[in-house]
Amino acid sequence: MTTRVPTMRVGLLGAGRIGRIHGLNVAARADAELVAVTDAVPAAAAALAAETGAKATSTEAILSDAGIDAILICTPTDTHADLIEAAVSAGKAVFCEKPVDLDAARIRRCLATVEASGRPLMIGFNRRFDPSFAALERRLRAGEAGAVEIVSVISRDPSPPPVEYVKRSGGLFRDMMIHDFDMARFLLAEEPVEVFALGSALVDPAIGKAGDVDTAAVLMKTASGRIAQISNSRRATYGYDQRIEVHGSQGMLRAGNIHETTVESATGNGFRADPVQNFFLERYASAYRAELDAFFTACRGGVAPTPSGLDGLKAQILADAATESARTGKPVMVDLEAAR
Amino acid sequence: MTTRVPTMRVGLLGAGRIGRIHGLNVAARADAELVAVTDAVPAAAAALAAETGAKATSTEAILSDAGIDAILICTPTDTHADLIEAAVSAGKAVFCEKPVDLDAARIRRCLATVEASGRPLMIGFNRRFDPSFAALERRLRAGEAGAVEIVSVISRDPSPPPVEYVKRSGGLFRDMMIHDFDMARFLLAEEPVEVFALGSALVDPAIGKAGDVDTAAVLMKTASGRIAQISNSRRATYGYDQRIEVHGSQGMLRAGNIHETTVESATGNGFRADPVQNFFLERYASAYRAELDAFFTACRGGVAPTPSGLDGLKAQILADAATESARTGKPVMVDLEAAR
Amino acid sequence: MTTRVPTMRVGLLGAGRIGRIHGLNVAARADAELVAVTDAVPAAAAALAAETGAKATSTEAILSDAGIDAILICTPTDTHADLIEAAVSAGKAVFCEKPVDLDAARIRRCLATVEASGRPLMIGFNRRFDPSFAALERRLRAGEAGAVEIVSVISRDPSPPPVEYVKRSGGLFRDMMIHDFDMARFLLAEEPVEVFALGSALVDPAIGKAGDVDTAAVLMKTASGRIAQISNSRRATYGYDQRIEVHGSQGMLRAGNIHETTVESATGNGFRADPVQNFFLERYASAYRAELDAFFTACRGGVAPTPSGLDGLKAQILADAATESARTGKPVMVDLEAAR
Amino acid sequence: MTTRVPTMRVGLLGAGRIGRIHGLNVAARADAELVAVTDAVPAAAAALAAETGAKATSTEAILSDAGIDAILICTPTDTHADLIEAAVSAGKAVFCEKPVDLDAARIRRCLATVEASGRPLMIGFNRRFDPSFAALERRLRAGEAGAVEIVSVISRDPSPPPVEYVKRSGGLFRDMMIHDFDMARFLLAEEPVEVFALGSALVDPAIGKAGDVDTAAVLMKTASGRIAQISNSRRATYGYDQRIEVHGSQGMLRAGNIHETTVESATGNGFRADPVQNFFLERYASAYRAELDAFFTACRGGVAPTPSGLDGLKAQILADAATESARTGKPVMVDLEAAR
Repeated sequence: MTTRVPTMRVGLLGAGRIGRIHGLNVAARADAELVAVTDAVPAAAAALAAETGAKATSTEAILSDAGIDAILICTPTDTHADLIEAAVSAGKAVFCEKPVDLDAARIRRCLATVEASGRPLMIGFNRRFDPSFAALERRLRAGEAGAVEIVSVISRDPSPPPVEYVKRSGGLFRDMMIHDFDMARFLLAEEPVEVFALGSALVDPAIGKAGDVDTAAVLMKTASGRIAQISNSRRATYGYDQRIEVHGSQGMLRAGNIHETTVESATGNGFRADPVQNFFLERYASAYRAELDAFFTACRGGVAPTPSGLDGLKAQILADAATESARTGKPVMVDLEAAR
Repeated sequence: MTTRVPTMRVGLLGAGRIGRIHGLNVAARADAELVAVTDAVPAAAAALAAETGAKATSTEAILSDAGIDAILICTPTDTHADLIEAAVSAGKAVFCEKPVDLDAARIRRCLATVEASGRPLMIGFNRRFDPSFAALERRLRAGEAGAVEIVSVISRDPSPPPVEYVKRSGGLFRDMMIHDFDMARFLLAEEPVEVFALGSALVDPAIGKAGDVDTAAVLMKTASGRIAQISNSRRATYGYDQRIEVHGSQGMLRAGNIHETTVESATGNGFRADPVQNFFLERYASAYRAELDAFFTACRGGVAPTPSGLDGLKAQILADAATESARTGKPVMVDLEAAR
Repeated sequence: MTTRVPTMRVGLLGAGRIGRIHGLNVAARADAELVAVTDAVPAAAAALAAETGAKATSTEAILSDAGIDAILICTPTDTHADLIEAAVSAGKAVFCEKPVDLDAARIRRCLATVEASGRPLMIGFNRRFDPSFAALERRLRAGEAGAVEIVSVISRDPSPPPVEYVKRSGGLFRDMMIHDFDMARFLLAEEPVEVFALGSALVDPAIGKAGDVDTAAVLMKTASGRIAQISNSRRATYGYDQRIEVHGSQGMLRAGNIHETTVESATGNGFRADPVQNFFLERYASAYRAELDAFFTACRGGVAPTPSGLDGLKAQILADAATESARTGKPVMVDLEAAR
Repeated sequence: MTTRVPTMRVGLLGAGRIGRIHGLNVAARADAELVAVTDAVPAAAAALAAETGAKATSTEAILSDAGIDAILICTPTDTHADLIEAAVSAGKAVFCEKPVDLDAARIRRCLATVEASGRPLMIGFNRRFDPSFAALERRLRAGEAGAVEIVSVISRDPSPPPVEYVKRSGGLFRDMMIHDFDMARFLLAEEPVEVFALGSALVDPAIGKAGDVDTAAVLMKTASGRIAQISNSRRATYGYDQRIEVHGSQGMLRAGNIHETTVESATGNGFRADPVQNFFLERYASAYRAELDAFFTACRGGVAPTPSGLDGLKAQILADAATESARTGKPVMVDLEAAR
């Protein structure tokens, strides 16, 4: 028999694709209750409310409901900073999907408000909670590969987003690679001081015409000389490709993709295995559950959740630096230690 | 928008380890409702009832509740046949964990009652619903490996059961290998006509003293000459080992285990991957969900569910034949086509 | 600087496919010299002689050449026993391709002659010298998997031999599976006492009409209860399939095939690797070199080479037992401890 | 029966580690003869001569021997350009180990002399001839991955060279990564126009004190926007790590390392495979044979061998650019199309 923990009463802002995931995950937990949900599309909130027993209501009602302990922010990016500020000011614990904002200065102001409130803020860099990536990081920290020397992160989406999405996205480095900047920081265990980026529009010319890239690579270096490599593509025919590899003084640790099944066929054409899981909601299903675990555990324990708002700011600074580097063709120096 | 299907109202007999799995899976479905649960240990039924919103009640109450469409039987083996008969006589659709009974004659009588009732009966050979094994079988039937020639099934449990369990189990061939007999039939697509079995007590001498074996292998042959190999061990240090391989005229198809994570380390000692998933409830979690899908879909569609009671009988006949072969040292001929 | 060893002067009887391999391997060694070669087809001997600097001559000349230390017998099976006897009687060390003879009684007489001569005899069960299989066996003996419980051997040829070959071959169990009987003995480290075999002609009906099988499986058991499984097919679309797996009280050890290259492709159809090496001369190239190493080392060291003539006899007895079992449908008891 | 080709008579300059490999490979060929060998260490030449039947002699004697068709240059780097010039001027076909020289201007002058001579020159970028890497490139060219988008090359040596070697090596980019620059060009099928490099001394501080790096990464971009990533380490505990991966519009192709054996063990600690082949002479043994094949075939066919002297120059220019980039912290533009 485990000790009964107090139920977290949760309000959800945004019932779109990722909001639904979090809402259903809250509803399925024994230690939390999805009390209320809202969305700019009322039918989306109503549907999720019907599935979970929550009530569909308004942002204002959720923020002012004294019976709600924690707010999950899954709304469009340009609303994140305002909602975080409003929620911590209302005394709520806050979990917010990445990014806090596309503008680092705005993030800084928001984090100052959070700090003043004393309320916990966690940013949804879900990949840290992927069971394989999390296990790799734990084993790395335990010294299994020795001192970190080279971190490699590969992310390839199955297919590019619509160009209309791209136009509002802040660009590949801020929209897609930001996850990899966070992962690189997570694995390097030392802040990058230099960022060099290359990008091309090879997948969809319309993305290039919109001023963005769909194929990109970054090199980063830390003060002690550790190196991180990141590469991104908006297209992968064989599934959603998400791999990390860390080379250290004592060995290598790597983690990767999950095939759709374990079936292997062998014929005169060779041995064939399935494509890898194709969709981020499937690939990271357990990561989404685990990050809520971490959020609720931190809130209950009175400890600051990780990844923090500052982690969100630092990833944004790296994404900004990469964007600038790709534009200017020059490496960009950053000082994340002084990020705040 | 999918067409709304009528809700299946389900009664659960038995709230032990496997009963809880099925009960929670029913409760999590949008198309079914766990109405009532009972168990010889009232606290077990009460706990599951509390988690799912079902009521804890008695077998009799469940069987006589006109509001219940389907019964899941997860009680001890020696109650299965009686409960199946009672449930179909009460007009319920029945899903029963394997085996129907340890005695083939009793199974035959039970199936006659089921047939007379016209109610559906499905037997819980969950491995057919493992996503990888199911995909392998579909691809095999689609001809990807050509004509089946050799079927190999490996099953190794992480650790042996208590000898008290073994004594009441009917022996390894009926208790453990029965799953592999069903899998072999599933993959051979032709009935075995001959069974030869070898067994030893290598894992736990107490199992040998109890008259059973813990390490065993079987060879079977079909009328057209297809061959099946099965091997079992009650012990595997590296996890729950469940593999199938089919060799055919055009190639090979195989499917196997899932490692705990995708992490791989490389050091001077070589490359190391995680053990495989260690526990049958974890290894077959999606299979348990998929077999309920199949059961409810068959019930709604008015088609006979598979694996059927007859599949249960045939696996039992093979297990009996193997038990006899291991005892006498001689191959045993069987006629599954005339099983009924 | 290594100590210079005396050169082994070698005569080769038989310059066919396997004879050429051994002849060229001898010629490429720094510690041996291919002195003379003979073949029923003079051109075959002449060609190999030209490539290696050996002289092409007759069996008699080779046997009576006092300058020759060792004889390699690579002639047709029905000449092996006579040639072994002649060679040891002439004072030569002898390496003979398997089998010594298709008749166990003839093997026994031959081995008596060898024993009386005091000369070394090694039988060419090349698979023991495959670097992976040899390493597996060493690690098994070192206890890495604990006590042996189940030995599994899979051998599948890429394609069946001509039926004319099959007719003279002694049947699949003596011609093909004999290698697997030796491998099973090598890995079990305890003699089988019981053999049960099943066989079918699924690959080529002409093989069935010739009274042989092309698809077969065997179960064997040792006195202490260890189990061996062997399966054979005369066909594999994906290459020459040669795998071993040993399950023990502390874990599992397995070794297998080598793909033609390490290239892997990933597309919408999944991940594809090459077929495995298709030809036994390629698959076992290093095994053929290593077995000569072992032969010469044993000869120089005055120790009995392994696998010995007795190993050849024991594998033959198992092959005979399997042949009888497949014919009669009954298991056959064997007493290899009393083989001689 | 294949048509008999004329024997290539070969002189070898340099009988050190790599010279011995080539010398023995020539001696083992049916279509070539190692006529003469020389080395600054007479005993080295004498030993190889004794093993192969060549005569040990002087550079001058080899160059002036009209009976010699082709020269293999395996001497220290600073002699390459002079020896190439002398050899082609003497009418010989020349195979020279990489690099032609550490100075691009000197390479240009040397290539002008080669061109004026009309004699063939091949540079020993052996990795192009690794069977897996060569097969990957052929399949890439055949369109299996579609248009090339991202090329990734990983090279990690098992352990760093002595610092004395490092001091004379030209630095990691010219000494070690030059192979990867050639491989990237081989796979990109379009010349890089931009090079950005990062390097650190993480493995051995003495390498850093000597002004070099032992851990490095490079990003390159072609005119059409293709991206290449290269990373190098002078240390890998788990073997000699050599991997390539190409991501394209239709999929991915990758090729990698070979484990020492195929043995896999499974215990409570997980699944363990061997380290990868640890030594470049073992890893690339077949590549060394295949590059001689290509050289002799080109010489006989009167076609220019590949990789050419110009390939050597282009790799050197990329290595120079990376060296400069790492020193200045800025990307360096290159124009390989105008390399000559």
